[in-house]
This record gives sequence, structure tokens and C-alpha cells, in this order.
Amino acid sequence: PDNFFLIAGPCVVEGEELVMEIADKVSKICRRLEIPYVFKASYRKANRTNAASFTGLGDSVGLDLIKKVGDTFQLPTTSDIHAHEEAAEAAKYIDILQIPAFLCRQTDLLIAAAETGKIVNVKKGQFLNGPSMKFAVEKIQKAGNNKVMLTERGNFFGYQDLVVDYRNIPWMSEHGVPVIMDCTHSLQQPNQTSGVTGGNPNLITTIAKAAIATGADGLFIETHPNPAVALSDGANMLHLSKLENLLEQLVRVRKAVI
Amino acid sequence: PDNFFLIAGPCVVEGEELVMEIADKVSKICRRLEIPYVFKASYRKANRTNAASFTGLGDSVGLDLIKKVGDTFQLPTTSDIHAHEEAAEAAKYIDILQIPAFLCRQTDLLIAAAETGKIVNVKKGQFLNGPSMKFAVEKIQKAGNNKVMLTERGNFFGYQDLVVDYRNIPWMSEHGVPVIMDCTHSLQQPNQTSGVTGGNPNLITTIAKAAIATGADGLFIETHPNPAVALSDGANMLHLSKLENLLEQLVRVRKAVI
Amino acid sequence: PDNFFLIAGPCVVEGEELVMEIADKVSKICRRLEIPYVFKASYRKANRTNAASFTGLGDSVGLDLIKKVGDTFQLPTTSDIHAHEEAAEAAKYIDILQIPAFLCRQTDLLIAAAETGKIVNVKKGQFLNGPSMKFAVEKIQKAGNNKVMLTERGNFFGYQDLVVDYRNIPWMSEHGVPVIMDCTHSLQQPNQTSGVTGGNPNLITTIAKAAIATGADGLFIETHPNPAVALSDGANMLHLSKLENLLEQLVRVRKAVI
Amino acid sequence: PDNFFLIAGPCVVEGEELVMEIADKVSKICRRLEIPYVFKASYRKANRTNAASFTGLGDSVGLDLIKKVGDTFQLPTTSDIHAHEEAAEAAKYIDILQIPAFLCRQTDLLIAAAETGKIVNVKKGQFLNGPSMKFAVEKIQKAGNNKVMLTERGNFFGYQDLVVDYRNIPWMSEHGVPVIMDCTHSLQQPNQTSGVTGGNPNLITTIAKAAIATGADGLFIETHPNPAVALSDGANMLHLSKLENLLEQLVRVRKAVI
Repeated sequence: PDNFFLIAGPCVVEGEELVMEIADKVSKICRRLEIPYVFKASYRKANRTNAASFTGLGDSVGLDLIKKVGDTFQLPTTSDIHAHEEAAEAAKYIDILQIPAFLCRQTDLLIAAAETGKIVNVKKGQFLNGPSMKFAVEKIQKAGNNKVMLTERGNFFGYQDLVVDYRNIPWMSEHGVPVIMDCTHSLQQPNQTSGVTGGNPNLITTIAKAAIATGADGLFIETHPNPAVALSDGANMLHLSKLENLLEQLVRVRKAVI
Repeated sequence: PDNFFLIAGPCVVEGEELVMEIADKVSKICRRLEIPYVFKASYRKANRTNAASFTGLGDSVGLDLIKKVGDTFQLPTTSDIHAHEEAAEAAKYIDILQIPAFLCRQTDLLIAAAETGKIVNVKKGQFLNGPSMKFAVEKIQKAGNNKVMLTERGNFFGYQDLVVDYRNIPWMSEHGVPVIMDCTHSLQQPNQTSGVTGGNPNLITTIAKAAIATGADGLFIETHPNPAVALSDGANMLHLSKLENLLEQLVRVRKAVI
Repeated sequence: PDNFFLIAGPCVVEGEELVMEIADKVSKICRRLEIPYVFKASYRKANRTNAASFTGLGDSVGLDLIKKVGDTFQLPTTSDIHAHEEAAEAAKYIDILQIPAFLCRQTDLLIAAAETGKIVNVKKGQFLNGPSMKFAVEKIQKAGNNKVMLTERGNFFGYQDLVVDYRNIPWMSEHGVPVIMDCTHSLQQPNQTSGVTGGNPNLITTIAKAAIATGADGLFIETHPNPAVALSDGANMLHLSKLENLLEQLVRVRKAVI
Repeated sequence: PDNFFLIAGPCVVEGEELVMEIADKVSKICRRLEIPYVFKASYRKANRTNAASFTGLGDSVGLDLIKKVGDTFQLPTTSDIHAHEEAAEAAKYIDILQIPAFLCRQTDLLIAAAETGKIVNVKKGQFLNGPSMKFAVEKIQKAGNNKVMLTERGNFFGYQDLVVDYRNIPWMSEHGVPVIMDCTHSLQQPNQTSGVTGGNPNLITTIAKAAIATGADGLFIETHPNPAVALSDGANMLHLSKLENLLEQLVRVRKAVI
């Protein structure tokens, strides 16, 4: 694994045209740069702050479209699940089950994901440190599944900000699993009075470079051809037109550290 | 409501004898001090850090025993639920459904709890501020249930500590709902390398007095006749023999502020 | 010492008429409520974020006016010093030398203050916990001065907020010294883009009640007859007309806890 | 300025032999790697937590030795000052006056440093964000000195930990000044019950790589041939024998990002 891998796509499955466009463009960029690419989109958003936010097209429509992307472009795919009874169903469509950060300690959910035999990618709670993620890894391994990945996505810093503690990259690597930096959600600004989480997408480059420099194995980046009209998380997504240049820079940093 | 109310009991249903003993003693104390009393015990612990920790006797045994306590001592009861499909079942046994702090933004869970028609007590996430809890209140109210309560249980302060921000008491009161201080879990010390959350129970008095002084409507205190042998959260529970003296002090503070 | 004591006055010496008015009114209130009263005003503001902020009338004018207040109303007085060479001079005019929170670890300053023989009141750094303040106490005691007090003023919580951790009240009391809550500066909101620290004065009641309930020996409250036109820290000062009612409430809480 | 620069040396001037040895070895490494090198040592430690800690050989001895190092190896030098009256004296011996993080808002100190005409390097307070450091820059510039640098050294994260927020690197660069990462003090673990600040020197590589990747212009690293016997800050200093390999890695990262 000489290069880092990339998990990328829109925040949520908004429609077929959109996911196909994104997968097409990102897979071409990644092929050229020799970056293994995993397509990501949520089929449901289960923990919006504000009940009025968009939560998806319906689970079966969303999962079908994610699978279609994978089949069409020959890509592994990932999405997040939110309750133990979703695991088996989602596993029919996707290759990597992602556990949301708020739910990273829900034992039932971790075990249900593990039992599908799929890769399980656990996002580190925004209130945990890297060493304590060993317990999540162990819960999955004890359920008979050794295909675990961990994702850093920042820690709460006061009420309305997140900070990424890069010590967590080597600390999580010590658990013997691939470590991913979620560049998108690490830039969230929670607890905004609007009920819509803010963000700061022009810092994605900073977050990503530091992650690669400190040894991250993969990056997670939400991207959209028009973040301003995205149905979820528009404040944080990278404009798709900026992805290629960013990845080129990151490949250079990667080569400097391996 | 001249006095504050008390939610108290063991962390988890360990057995019939224990819950009966606790309910008996606490209800006598509360009757004497004119403190409305709600019996609390978890029937399942779903988010232990370490998979080896005790998680309960089985849901139906646990719920049965909680109901028996309520019937025997004529007490309202509460317990926490962890997934939307538990709500309807738990509602057959208990009067107040408590939503765990890590799950306070899971819309499905909040709505399922709301739809039982029972009182819903949402614990504030350890990463949220009081004003942002208005979105949880609204999710429940929009599901047709106005019986909402909010519970403060501290905010993450670095990786291994919690701090209680008492500004959240008046801030949450502004949402027009009763506000409870969870004196037990506010003293947790998370992310300990052992995988067992530490604590500091001799500070319960400090946490509780400040809560009553700043206008909390209720207190949540886990108590046990022998915390050293408790099967869960022994590090934080108040020794049952110390409860009466504590409550006497708190009643005096309450009278000074109303 | 049945009651708590009060350190109060304007943030900075703005002029003779103002300090006399405040001392007159506050001393009458405190006499009636049997609250020992210490007059406070800064003669210089040494650490304004923004160099354009008001920093005082000049040291000798400021110190003279503080002394005049003390002599006129028969009150002990206090002010803050910022460098070791100020200690001896300030000690000629005031009774309690206050060490600013940012400077609480500057050994030279602590020793110079100690050597005046005056009472030394060290504000806890916004980055320290109560137990670690024992080192400040020891530095002063080893310089031959046992008249030490410690003041809580909140801890940084993210970049733009402070939170008061009331565990620090009993923790600092364990050092065997009086513990004071600075209700004014605990409500600051630092790092505002304007360069002027914001605040939230309507939470003073919350901060003060929790402090008295948890055992604080004294309170520090900046007050002004017209905070909106104050030359420094107007965002945090309590309107003088609200002081009497607040203190009446606090006396009731005090009686409930001693 | 194709390469980053390095500020390095022992925490404090312990003796002539030691400072000469360090300067000799580091200057050879830096010459080979084309890294501009500034020799650093403190001549006095003014804010030890514990009064019993070593504070230096005496100011004039310390300053003389720093100057001797600069003259002998033809290096620019730096040290920290702690009170405004030290600025003029220190400026006779050293080239860059460093302002400690706790003191970064002391206006008198910043102005006294500025008025020497030397370069002034202000360490960002562990409680400030990058944008708010513009006020420190302005105070120095308004005193007629445009030679300002800013140093990141981590932010308090709970009571006993620091975290480096790499967003501060680009944020401080926006003030138009060189930005330095203090790799040593960013790893401190404050508020330890011993009164001696702990640390974690094996994370220096992580801190330094992320800094260079995100655009830092310089690095600050305390180094010692035998940290275990160092008279100050031994817990954080890099073993001198590890410096060359670290710098080689960092030069590669630097080339990847410029």
C-alpha cells in the first residue's frame, strides 16, 4: 500500500445523476493518481440536529443507488448505519459499514456490523482519544471479524468548535488497523444556534496535509459539484472541481513520508 | 412544585432483593423530606466501553423488576432505552423513558420514545450546550408529546474529565421543561486506560448543591448499599447510607432559592 | 466568619466621583446585610487584548483614589499588580494585592507581593485546576507570608468561552486558604474578533449562587452605576442597582449551607 | 526562504560546555541540510510551577554564554524575557526576544521588546486562537517594530493536556509574519500533581511533520545530549542524537509542500 486510499462522495444520496457524476469524476482522478478509491454516500441521515433537515430518499432507494455506483465503476462502496437491525440489510449492498462517531460505543451496533463479515469502519467519538478506541476494535474482533478500520473526525473543543489532535493518528495505528482522517467532519462547527452545523471548507487542505504527514492510511472527503445547493452538509463539502489539485499535493506529501 | 424531585436507584438492575431494598429506603427518606421520588434502574447497559463489563440480567427480567418496584412502593419509575424498537416495549413497564446522552440526537429514537405517550427525559450530550437542546425538545413535541424533561450530565473537558457548566441549568429551563442534574454521571472520568470509567463520588455534594442553587427542578443520583461490589458504575455511586444527610442539606438550599 | 465577604467595585478607577459613589452605595448595602466589604478597583489595566483599550488614569492617581476610598469609608481595599516592581509601591496604598490569572505562575511577582506583608490574593489561571494552585500558595508562604487567598475565575473552554468548574471550590479550600469566586470574569467570552472581550452579565446570579452553595468564602463582583458607558469591561459588570437584591438572595443561600 | 528554519538548543543555560556542544552539533547538521539555525536557551525560568525547580545560573552568566555561542558559531540567538525591564538588557546579547505564552497579552512587555528594535517572537497563549494574535502583532508594529514572529505551542485541552490546532498555522500566517511551531512545549502535560510538567517526546516527529505539512516557516525544538539529567524540562526535550534523522524527514516534507 504505497499510496493512501480515498473515501469520497456526496454527504447523502440525493439522486442517481448526482452520484454517477461524482463517482465518474473521482474515479478518473484517482486512477490517474493511483489512489485506491472507495465511493461513499449516506442512504439515511439519522442524527440531524434539526428535525426539518433532509434525511434521505428512503433506505432501499439509497442503497440501490450506492450499489449501482459500485457495479458501474467497479468501486468498493461504503455508507453509515445507525441501528443494529440495519447492518445485515446494508451489508447486501455495500462493502464497508461505517459506524457514526456518536454511536461508536453502542455494543449491539458494533457486533451486528461485525457479524456481517464486511469491513467495519468505526469513527472515533468526538469525545474519545485514540488509545480508548482499542475497545471498539476488540468488540469487533471478538465477534469474529478482523476487518476493522478507525476514522479520526476531530474532538469537541468548547461547545462550538472541533479540533483535530494528530497524536491520535499514531495512537490509533498502534491498534494494528488502517487509520483514516475524515477531513470533512473534522471541520464542523457544532451547536450553532441555527441548528445547522457550520463549517470551514477552505481548511480541508490543512487538515488533509497534516493527516498524510502524520501517517494516515486513508482520507475521507465529502465532495459535491455544487456544495451551495447540496441537501445536507453543504457547509463542509469540498467543491468537486478542487479535488484533483488537492490530491496531487497530498500524493507529494505521501511520497515524502513513506 | 415547592421541592425538587429525585430520580434515584442503582445503576443497573442487579437482582430483586437489591432493587427492593433501595426503593424501600429511599422512598422512606423522600416521604419524610417531602421529595417526590422516581425509582431508576437500567435494565440493560448498551454502551459499556469494555465488552467484558456487566450489561444486565436480560431485558424482560430487568423491566419486570422495575415494574414490581413501582407497584410495591407506589412509585413512578424510569429506565433508559437505546434503540427505537425498545421504546414501545419499555413503555409497558416504566413511566419515564430516558434517552442516553450519546443518543440524544438520534431522531428515530426520540420519535419512538415520544410516540409511547410517556414522559421522555433526554440527557444532554456531553458535547452539547443547553441552548442546542431545544432541537431535541422540538423533535419530541412535534411527535405529539409535550411531556419532555432535560438532564444535565456534564461536558467533556479534555479526554479524561467532565465539567458541569451551570449556565446550562437556566439555559435549558428556557425551553419550558423541567431540568434535572445527573449528579452521578457528571463526575465520571472517561477514557481511562482500564476501559472502566472512573469517578469521584465525594464530590456529589458539590455537584448537587450547585444544581439546586442554580434552579434545577430535579436531581438524578445513583445509589447503592455497597458501591464497592456494584456490578456497574461502582466508582460513581453514592453510598445509600449517605443519601439522607445529603438530601437534608439540599432541601435547605432549595428553600433558600425558591 | 458566618457570612461570605464581598470584593466589589468598578473594573478600573475611572475618576473620583465614580469610585466614591460606588463605595458609598455598596458599603451601605453590605453593612445592612452584615457582609464584610473590600473595595476593589484596578489602577492600571496591563493586559488589554487591544492596545487601543483604556488602561487607567496613571498609577499614582489611581492608587491615591483607592486609598481615599478606603480612608473615607473605613474599608479595606484591593487592586491588581502586574510586575514585581509594582508590589512595594502598591502596598503603600492597598490592603490586598491581587495577582492576575495570566501571571499566577510568575514566581518573581508572587514573591514580591508576599514580601510586602500584605494579603496576597492569587487568581487561578484559566488553564489550571484547583489542586495545582497549591504551588502558588507555597511560593508565598515560603516567602514568609501566610496571608494568602485564592480566586476562581473560570477555565478556558474552547477558544471563545469560559466554564466554571465548581469542584475547584472544595479543591482550593483544601489548601487551607479562603476561596473567592470572581463572578465577573468567569463570564467573559474571550478571543472575540473585535479584540474586546464579551460577556453575559445576566448569568452573574447563577455563578454567584453556585459558588456560595459549594462553599466559597468570598465573592468578587465588578459593579458600575452605568455599565454601558464604563471605560473597561462594561460587557461583564453588574448594574449597581441590581447588587442589593442579588446579595439578599446569596445571604439566604449562605445560611442554608453553613 | 526555500527551507524552514530551526530554533533549537537546551531549555535553559546549564553551563558553558553543554551549550557549546549542542550549538556545535546542531549547527553542523543544519549546515549540511541547508536549514537556517537560531540558537536558543533560556537564561532564566520565571514561571516554574514548583518553586523548587531550577531557574538558571543568574541572568548575566546566562546571557554571556548565549552571546558566546552566537559569536563562536556565527549564529543568531534567542531567549525569553519575562518583564519589561529585562528587554533592553537582553537585547544587548541576543537577536530575537521571545515572549512567553502566558505573557503574550502583557502590553508593557510587548512594547519594551518592540522598542529594542530586535526581532520579537511572541508565543501564542495556550488559551488563544491564531486570529486573536493579530492584536499582539499590532502592539509591536505600533511601537515601530515590524520584525515580528508568532509561535504556536498548543492549547489547553482539559486540565492536564495540550492539543495543537493546526488551523492556527494558516490563520497566523494571515497576519503576514513568519509562523513557528514549538514542537517541545506543545507536548507538555500541565497540572501534574508533582508540580513538574510531564511530556511525551516520542510524539515530536508527529508534531513537527504536521507543522511543516501545513506551512510552518520555522520549528522550535529543545534538544539535549542527555535529557534524563537535564535541569529543566527533561520530560519534553529531544535527544540530540535523534535530531538529524528527524530533520532529514522534515526537509523531505517541506520539499513536497512548497
